[in-house]
Amino acid sequence: MTEPAPMSDKRVERSKAKVLAETYRQLAQSGLGGVSIDQVSRNSGISKTTIYRHWPSRSALLIDACSRLGGAPAIPETGGLRDTVRTLLTSLADQLQTANWSSVYPSIIDAAERDPEIDAMQQALHQAFMAPFQTVVRRAKASGELPADRVVKDVVAALVGPCFYRRWFSKERIDARFIDSIIETVLG
Amino acid sequence: MTEPAPMSDKRVERSKAKVLAETYRQLAQSGLGGVSIDQVSRNSGISKTTIYRHWPSRSALLIDACSRLGGAPAIPETGGLRDTVRTLLTSLADQLQTANWSSVYPSIIDAAERDPEIDAMQQALHQAFMAPFQTVVRRAKASGELPADRVVKDVVAALVGPCFYRRWFSKERIDARFIDSIIETVLG
Repeated sequence: MTEPAPMSDKRVERSKAKVLAETYRQLAQSGLGGVSIDQVSRNSGISKTTIYRHWPSRSALLIDACSRLGGAPAIPETGGLRDTVRTLLTSLADQLQTANWSSVYPSIIDAAERDPEIDAMQQALHQAFMAPFQTVVRRAKASGELPADRVVKDVVAALVGPCFYRRWFSKERIDARFIDSIIETVLG
Repeated sequence: MTEPAPMSDKRVERSKAKVLAETYRQLAQSGLGGVSIDQVSRNSGISKTTIYRHWPSRSALLIDACSRLGGAPAIPETGGLRDTVRTLLTSLADQLQTANWSSVYPSIIDAAERDPEIDAMQQALHQAFMAPFQTVVRRAKASGELPADRVVKDVVAALVGPCFYRRWFSKERIDARFIDSIIETVLG
């Protein structure tokens, strides 16, 4: 008897992509708690054995699917501090109000309260997503556009916190007027 | 045959209190998704029939349990705007970092993304919780402590948004220094 031929790399990639796409679909529809490996297997046509070969646990699959949830906004190349921050906040507001991940994210925040693996993943996602804001504020301190004694993380929280708050807690619009009001308040 | 004697009001109240206490315990332990009527019945010793007599659905019970999640902070009777806001934010920070509801709340936010009943309940909870902040900012505009053109809801979002953000998203401490930094930024 001979060993079964190993799956080609391309076929492996195609299978993984199908599993991730179906996982992401379930995530977007029902949040983290609504993802079932049985259902992922059924809908993707990939066997549970194959799924578990690539992801040792349901958490591992969830983490992989979540980490593809969308990228950090790009820092514009030119412009002063206020214009740059306005561009970043406008992009954030747009994502918060239209992107799939914004309705999935609360289920990650919820699971992170009880699952240390999900918590670590959420913190890594968050760091990556906030990096452009931190870079811009740090540069502004270096160039003198912001006073040297402003604490970078305080400024970032003051800029993005009100947007997160409106999306998930007070459920008010994050429009251009609100963004201007944040900039006026925080950057003076 | 005679009708069975109706339960005394006191007995009804005791049964309801047991059910709510057990529901709250499960909520605090596993979030909204972790509450099971079977388990509530088993652990409280109250039959499912009785539970469904008082709450027509699982959602109705969840909403009742959640609406007892804690009260809005009281507005201090004396003091200027900054001191009053500092007292309110300190109380909010304390609750965010120690109260049971703060680890339950993300599961409500998550469920609200998909369940209109839970969404309406969350918005009512949120309104009640933010009312003291709105009152204080409105009074400060009336007394001239804040410029008349500041938008009340913008100021509230700028004050509390960064605290919500730190508790559930960036997971940084909300300490006295951070609260002072918010007050300095928002109230100038």
